Amino acid sequence: MRTIAVQTASASYPVFVGSGLLKTVPEKLRKQFGKERQRVFVLTSPEIWSLWGETLAAGFDEKPSVLFLPPGETYKRMAQIERLATEMVDAGADRSSLLIAFGGGIIGDMGGFLAAIYMRGIPYVQIPTTLLAQVDSSVGGKTGSNLATGKNLIGSFHHPQAVFADVSTLKTLPARELRAGLFESVKAGIIRDAALFRYLEKQSDLVLSGDEIALQKVIAASVAMKAEVVGIDERESGLRMILNFGHTVGHAIEAATGYKKLLHGEAVGWGMLAALELSRRRGVIAEKEAARIEAVIRAYGPLPPFRAKVDALMDAAGRDKKNKAGVRRFILTEGVGQSIVVEDVTDAELESIIAWTLAEAKR
Amino acid sequence: MRTIAVQTASASYPVFVGSGLLKTVPEKLRKQFGKERQRVFVLTSPEIWSLWGETLAAGFDEKPSVLFLPPGETYKRMAQIERLATEMVDAGADRSSLLIAFGGGIIGDMGGFLAAIYMRGIPYVQIPTTLLAQVDSSVGGKTGSNLATGKNLIGSFHHPQAVFADVSTLKTLPARELRAGLFESVKAGIIRDAALFRYLEKQSDLVLSGDEIALQKVIAASVAMKAEVVGIDERESGLRMILNFGHTVGHAIEAATGYKKLLHGEAVGWGMLAALELSRRRGVIAEKEAARIEAVIRAYGPLPPFRAKVDALMDAAGRDKKNKAGVRRFILTEGVGQSIVVEDVTDAELESIIAWTLAEAKR
Ligand SMILES: NC(=O)c1ccc[n+]([C@@H]2O[C@H](COP(=O)([O-])OP(=O)(O)OC[C@H]3O[C@@H](n4cnc5c(N)ncnc54)[C@H](O)[C@@H]3O)[C@@H](O)[C@H]2O)c1
Ligand SMILES: NC(=O)c1ccc[n+]([C@@H]2O[C@H](COP(=O)([O-])OP(=O)(O)OC[C@H]3O[C@@H](n4cnc5c(N)ncnc54)[C@H](O)[C@@H]3O)[C@@H](O)[C@H]2O)c1
Ligand SMILES: [Zn+2]
Ligand SMILES: [Zn+2]
Repeated sequence: MRTIAVQTASASYPVFVGSGLLKTVPEKLRKQFGKERQRVFVLTSPEIWSLWGETLAAGFDEKPSVLFLPPGETYKRMAQIERLATEMVDAGADRSSLLIAFGGGIIGDMGGFLAAIYMRGIPYVQIPTTLLAQVDSSVGGKTGSNLATGKNLIGSFHHPQAVFADVSTLKTLPARELRAGLFESVKAGIIRDAALFRYLEKQSDLVLSGDEIALQKVIAASVAMKAEVVGIDERESGLRMILNFGHTVGHAIEAATGYKKLLHGEAVGWGMLAALELSRRRGVIAEKEAARIEAVIRAYGPLPPFRAKVDALMDAAGRDKKNKAGVRRFILTEGVGQSIVVEDVTDAELESIIAWTLAEAKR
Repeated sequence: MRTIAVQTASASYPVFVGSGLLKTVPEKLRKQFGKERQRVFVLTSPEIWSLWGETLAAGFDEKPSVLFLPPGETYKRMAQIERLATEMVDAGADRSSLLIAFGGGIIGDMGGFLAAIYMRGIPYVQIPTTLLAQVDSSVGGKTGSNLATGKNLIGSFHHPQAVFADVSTLKTLPARELRAGLFESVKAGIIRDAALFRYLEKQSDLVLSGDEIALQKVIAASVAMKAEVVGIDERESGLRMILNFGHTVGHAIEAATGYKKLLHGEAVGWGMLAALELSRRRGVIAEKEAARIEAVIRAYGPLPPFRAKVDALMDAAGRDKKNKAGVRRFILTEGVGQSIVVEDVTDAELESIIAWTLAEAKR
């Protein structure tokens, strides 16, 4: 097991990464919170609970109360938050209760948000069960839900008390989900961790095969990178923006394809290719480095093809909430482990790399 | 104009109390936030906007975008937050936008909550237009909405950037609302500010007549008391609990009467009589002091009569979210300006003062 400490201006908590961690959760929580202090609620999906619920619940003296959210972005909405909060009230949850978010990124974001606003905030713990959630969404305190008009437009910064990334739970994760999540680790390597990048470059077969030791290494490094960035810039006023590498175009692709065709990580994969292409065109990256980066992104593919209109992507990119008051922020790469934030990407440039991406994605 | 500084662990901001402040808002915001930095959104109700909107909007170079919430607790719900957030997205609000909550306590709580979770938090300003909101709800950072199962069960701590309590706006406030709000000032006097209590005792006629100078004095003192308490205990883990004087039974009365019969301040008035009665029975207050306190509470009446069942109030009091894991917290008074928190009130005691209160309220 590896432990990574997250330390920000407003919170500090451990991220545990290892195999077979689920059954250690009750004991660790007892140590952290004292024995009888709080009632435990678990937010999860029916599938995840049927696969892993027993393993988690086994060690609790008093069985936790389980709340369910069906899988899918359709349920990442305020109405579900309201329903879940009402169920918690009915089940007697109070300010001293603890919520465990047990599932993928949707469960994590919704559980964190529910904990953030239930009675103005209760403590919670993340137990991410997708690769994406383990390497990315469970760390950093961003929580939230969608609006009909866009993803993650409502939310809070609310850090968990602890994160348990149990690599063993990934055994039941569909291969496509694993592959998609790994793009966030590829991103971590590209923007800030050259050693992680090299590992992903050399060991792509092992990593993609789901080898637990390899995954543990990748997850721990990705989390450490994110923890460091978030520690420096919790609220995304500076450095944290680099985590959006691949996300400007990635989010636009997701929006333009109605969040149905591609998984988030896959859209980010395409978005990273777009950001790389823009970095090339602007001459901020040497071709040798660019080729290495492209090869690794493609190695974690194949990226599923998709079709969309340039206009639809432009509209979506314009409405990207990362872009503040007229400024379009874009993250470029200058080479493995090095990223920069630029604010002067023109509509013409954006349109041109979007067209390039769509051409790539059609094949 | 008086300025009271609120300083907590997580925020510090001014509360301006005075006459004719509305027209000074744009200038003050320009000073505080810089000239062109942000788009301004105003959350208000149609009535308040038609009464005071022009006065507020006059000084803005760029007219603020106005969002409406109909009056009443029925609309203090998540579905409205979602609708308002969607309208903000459609109108182009981003993270640098500023929200002004312009109205009574419901607008303040909902506006603060909307600001707390819109794109994970944007800055906001309170312009309270009811006495209750000016003396109490606009200060302290508690924001939120109701669930079907109970009031204020969802929310955030999110402090405003500034509060403008314009006494002049109270001119159009119905007399009953003014009277009800004053109970929170009476509470402020009882629990911690003997000078304020004496002023309310001596000048009840002047205050109740709506005299602007007298109201300014009362509002400033009430705010100063709350600011001090919140500065010491932002998250209600200790001292801040005294602000709940009169609220255990008060909330129960509101719940048991379906939030229809009494205004919040009136229920708190009854609740203070109940808390005073319990303080008497427990012998923690001298009879002379108790009589003074009772006289002032009644002077700010008449408290409207109501009917309810002891059981309904007991149920509601048991579900009061201020009561943590089995502990029933109760605030008692030891005399003017002095309050204590006790945790050992038995069901029998509670039932008995509830019965006493119901008997009083029937006449
Ligand atoms: N908060 C953040 O910082 C952040 C960062 C990135 C993404 N996100 C959010 O994360 C979400 C995506 O998360 P995701 O990719 O984990 O998707 P997801 O939560 O939808 O999970 C993917 C699917 O895998 C299933 N699943 C999860 N764990 C499983 C397991 N161990 N075995 C079998 N099936 C399992 C889920 O039920 C679901 O059907 C998006 O909503 C995105 O906005 C948040
Ligand atoms: N956040 C806190 O710390 C806190 C504290 C106490 C109460 N509250 C909340 O405050 C709410 C009650 O607030 P309230 O008593 O201000 O009630 P309110 O917001 O419902 O306003 C009362 C009525 O007066 C009208 N009104 C407001 N200003 C007016 C004006 N200047 N002229 C004419 N009409 C005007 C409103 O439209 C409304 O119909 C409750 O929801 C309560 O939970 C919050
Ligand atoms: Zn991502
Ligand atoms: Zn009150």
